[in-house]
Amino acid sequence: MKLKLKANLLDIGTGGPLVVLLDDDTAKKMNVFVGDRVQIIVGKKSTVCTVDIAKNEPQDTVGIFRDAAKVLKVKNKQIVTVHPVTRPASVRAIKNKLGGATLSYEQLRGIINDIASNHLMNVEIAYFVSAAYTRGFSLEEVYNLTKAMIETGSKIEWSKVAVSKHCIGGVSGNRTTMLLVPILAAAGLLMPKTSSRSITSPAGTADTMEVLAPVVVNSVDAVRKIVKEANGCIVWGGALNLAPADDRIIRVEHPLSLDPTPMLLASILAKKKSEGANKVLIDIPVGKYSKVKTLRRFDELELGFVKLGARLGMKIKVMKSKAVAPIGKGIGPVLEARDILWVLKRNVWAPKDLEKKSIQMAGTLLKLGGKAKTELSGRKLARKILDSGMAYEQMKKIIKAQGGDPEVNPSELTLGKKTYTLKATRKGRVVDINDDVVATMAKLAGAPKDKSAGVYLHVALKDKTICGEPLFTIYSNTNYRLEQAKALANKIVKIK
Amino acid sequence: MKLKLKANLLDIGTGGPLVVLLDDDTAKKMNVFVGDRVQIIVGKKSTVCTVDIAKNEPQDTVGIFRDAAKVLKVKNKQIVTVHPVTRPASVRAIKNKLGGATLSYEQLRGIINDIASNHLMNVEIAYFVSAAYTRGFSLEEVYNLTKAMIETGSKIEWSKVAVSKHCIGGVSGNRTTMLLVPILAAAGLLMPKTSSRSITSPAGTADTMEVLAPVVVNSVDAVRKIVKEANGCIVWGGALNLAPADDRIIRVEHPLSLDPTPMLLASILAKKKSEGANKVLIDIPVGKYSKVKTLRRFDELELGFVKLGARLGMKIKVMKSKAVAPIGKGIGPVLEARDILWVLKRNVWAPKDLEKKSIQMAGTLLKLGGKAKTELSGRKLARKILDSGMAYEQMKKIIKAQGGDPEVNPSELTLGKKTYTLKATRKGRVVDINDDVVATMAKLAGAPKDKSAGVYLHVALKDKTICGEPLFTIYSNTNYRLEQAKALANKIVKIK
Repeated sequence: MKLKLKANLLDIGTGGPLVVLLDDDTAKKMNVFVGDRVQIIVGKKSTVCTVDIAKNEPQDTVGIFRDAAKVLKVKNKQIVTVHPVTRPASVRAIKNKLGGATLSYEQLRGIINDIASNHLMNVEIAYFVSAAYTRGFSLEEVYNLTKAMIETGSKIEWSKVAVSKHCIGGVSGNRTTMLLVPILAAAGLLMPKTSSRSITSPAGTADTMEVLAPVVVNSVDAVRKIVKEANGCIVWGGALNLAPADDRIIRVEHPLSLDPTPMLLASILAKKKSEGANKVLIDIPVGKYSKVKTLRRFDELELGFVKLGARLGMKIKVMKSKAVAPIGKGIGPVLEARDILWVLKRNVWAPKDLEKKSIQMAGTLLKLGGKAKTELSGRKLARKILDSGMAYEQMKKIIKAQGGDPEVNPSELTLGKKTYTLKATRKGRVVDINDDVVATMAKLAGAPKDKSAGVYLHVALKDKTICGEPLFTIYSNTNYRLEQAKALANKIVKIK
Repeated sequence: MKLKLKANLLDIGTGGPLVVLLDDDTAKKMNVFVGDRVQIIVGKKSTVCTVDIAKNEPQDTVGIFRDAAKVLKVKNKQIVTVHPVTRPASVRAIKNKLGGATLSYEQLRGIINDIASNHLMNVEIAYFVSAAYTRGFSLEEVYNLTKAMIETGSKIEWSKVAVSKHCIGGVSGNRTTMLLVPILAAAGLLMPKTSSRSITSPAGTADTMEVLAPVVVNSVDAVRKIVKEANGCIVWGGALNLAPADDRIIRVEHPLSLDPTPMLLASILAKKKSEGANKVLIDIPVGKYSKVKTLRRFDELELGFVKLGARLGMKIKVMKSKAVAPIGKGIGPVLEARDILWVLKRNVWAPKDLEKKSIQMAGTLLKLGGKAKTELSGRKLARKILDSGMAYEQMKKIIKAQGGDPEVNPSELTLGKKTYTLKATRKGRVVDINDDVVATMAKLAGAPKDKSAGVYLHVALKDKTICGEPLFTIYSNTNYRLEQAKALANKIVKIK
């Protein structure tokens, strides 16, 4: 049943989904239920929205949330036509999968298309995630899911081999991307890297790179231009519409911290394929402070990545790294950017663990990209590129191409003005640095929103400590935040 | 991290869930993600709300939806304290069930308690429904689920045997409750029946009874008072807080039309047990126009009901009925109420199919309640109660006890002023009455919101037709709606 209703603009964002709000009685009249779909027509514009229902709303109006209002270009109090439409076919496919069926390419494409275009609501996406979690996907299904994710977004194509890497997060610091891109670009490989901002950590690669240069790039052409100038880039992927369905799926997985293997594999390789990378190194830290905690889970993921990569025409190498403590000394965008520049400038303060891990990964990628015969010779080449200053020069080119200042002095980067340093009260050896607590402390201090906030570790795992020697320093910009961070100070470093 | 924010009251209902809206940056600062929980403190009031996140909201404010504002008694622009709290333990239990675990009573109680008190959000409830759908529940789990649903709501206790019935819907008309309650109450049994309003059908029992008497009862004591006067009642259950978690689960099941057996069994028997009924007849119509379409599904449900009932100390009888066409002649609240009164007053226009089915069910319930030795003698007794006018007298008592006019004349009930009657254009026999289309047509005409709207069937299945004889009449109150309903006119009755 079609109704003419007065638009009541609700100035509330939903972060994507197009939602309208109807009164309970109006909805009943129209025979729609919460979560059903209606078409809204205003002049020549029209779109499908999902229905939210509330009691005691005015009966002659339809509440239109901000995202839907934007699409419809509707004005407050304007009269709009509202009528129910049937559920998209993808809802039926999700139900079938939940019942144990196998989905075809067309069905998965339908689901992913409806997610990317905001035609499925979160509860329906949750059923899709549940289906993946409880029923599993065949390799064919994971392949089709990934393909659909790629096809419903933008894609960057390159005329020569492009390499990339991805780390299945969970370890603080660990900013290898910002060393790998200049090393590999200096070796003559393309490395067009898109990164994410922090979701729950004290810094994402995009947040850290942003200390040195702008990272928000709004078009595929702009990425091409940077890479043409500097062989590589380190930009934020969020504005490029690469595999956009993935971002919404991740939001729905969060409340239960679900991470079904099919979605994890598809999510990562869809982004890489959309970047145009065809040789990819996947770093999976395994350990008590990492997302992947067991070897069994590592093996399962490794096999999945390699098989799925082959189907997608990509060469994938999976490496297992340790996740026993933070990697690098700084935690927080500015502190991490400083570590990176120190490594590139061969400074004595450069964190050795981060440097070592990056050289190892660079060796693998140089072999993957055909610039070295073995991983070992690749590592040697990487060290040479680093030691000779070529990597630093390449980073300056990248910073310049992205619009930053290549001559920035790492030791002059602005840090939080309020600091607190904890000193060792006994002689001994560092036997544990609790990465979970370090991350929380850096966030309490203000990271990643406040780029200059964070934690700097003066000691690493297994270091000897002397009484009175600093263990770590907290950087913040308000006394309140510093106090909050300080409250965790005694839970970080364990000395025996 | 704790923040002091200015309350921005959002005058939007959510139908239960307590939700606040934070700006993306504010949320990041506080380290909360969409769907996370925060505690909101205003003076001495405090509550836990789930977080909705939007971009470009003011950073110093927290948007508070109507239901949360009501709990907090907060004023617009008032300063409130907001800080993150951890997920309730029930989220972990849901994840475990999704992974194939078996849930204990304590875990199920935790989940149901959090659903009833709006501490779980819809996406989380969807994961719980998925878990039930894909993993199944043991009898022990279904029992504990049902128990938890009962315990988290109100309960009505009776000092003697109380009977009840429930029909697993899907058939239009079929208003047996309104004949069963007066017949059984007249036989001396207690039948304190709570019913629902229509969700997707042209009329629920509560909507139909409301034509004759008020059905909104706000307390268990008020129900007791009515039943004391009239041995039975036909009231709306919605305001009585009986197994309230069930209502939210049903909302989340709707988008995929999921109906996992554990939830279906628990939902129905939790409501019956909360009503205080201990002898219950479950009517399951099976057929192409019903929710239950196969005998296999009927068998599964029958076994489930009987076993679960036994665990709950209830005597359950399950009957299979036909769902090949609407039952009764009127579809829509007034038309259905008129049919009921015609049966009770032994009027010649009374629909025979509805009368016959009700007598059959009454026979079973009289035996269950100990008023008849066999179902057959029960049926004889029911017919006697009906024919003698005792049932009609009892209905008048019930109408009076609920505050209605017992002397209402069915033939004078107000019907929609705009009518359209379709007449047979050939001689033949009625071979199909499409119940799905009848329901849609009655809703297009305005039912259930417009109680006087609906469809009246002049013919029943297998009736002979004569050219020019009326097949059905549509009642509506606006020309627009009548035209909408008329558009389906040729899809209702099939003559051969």
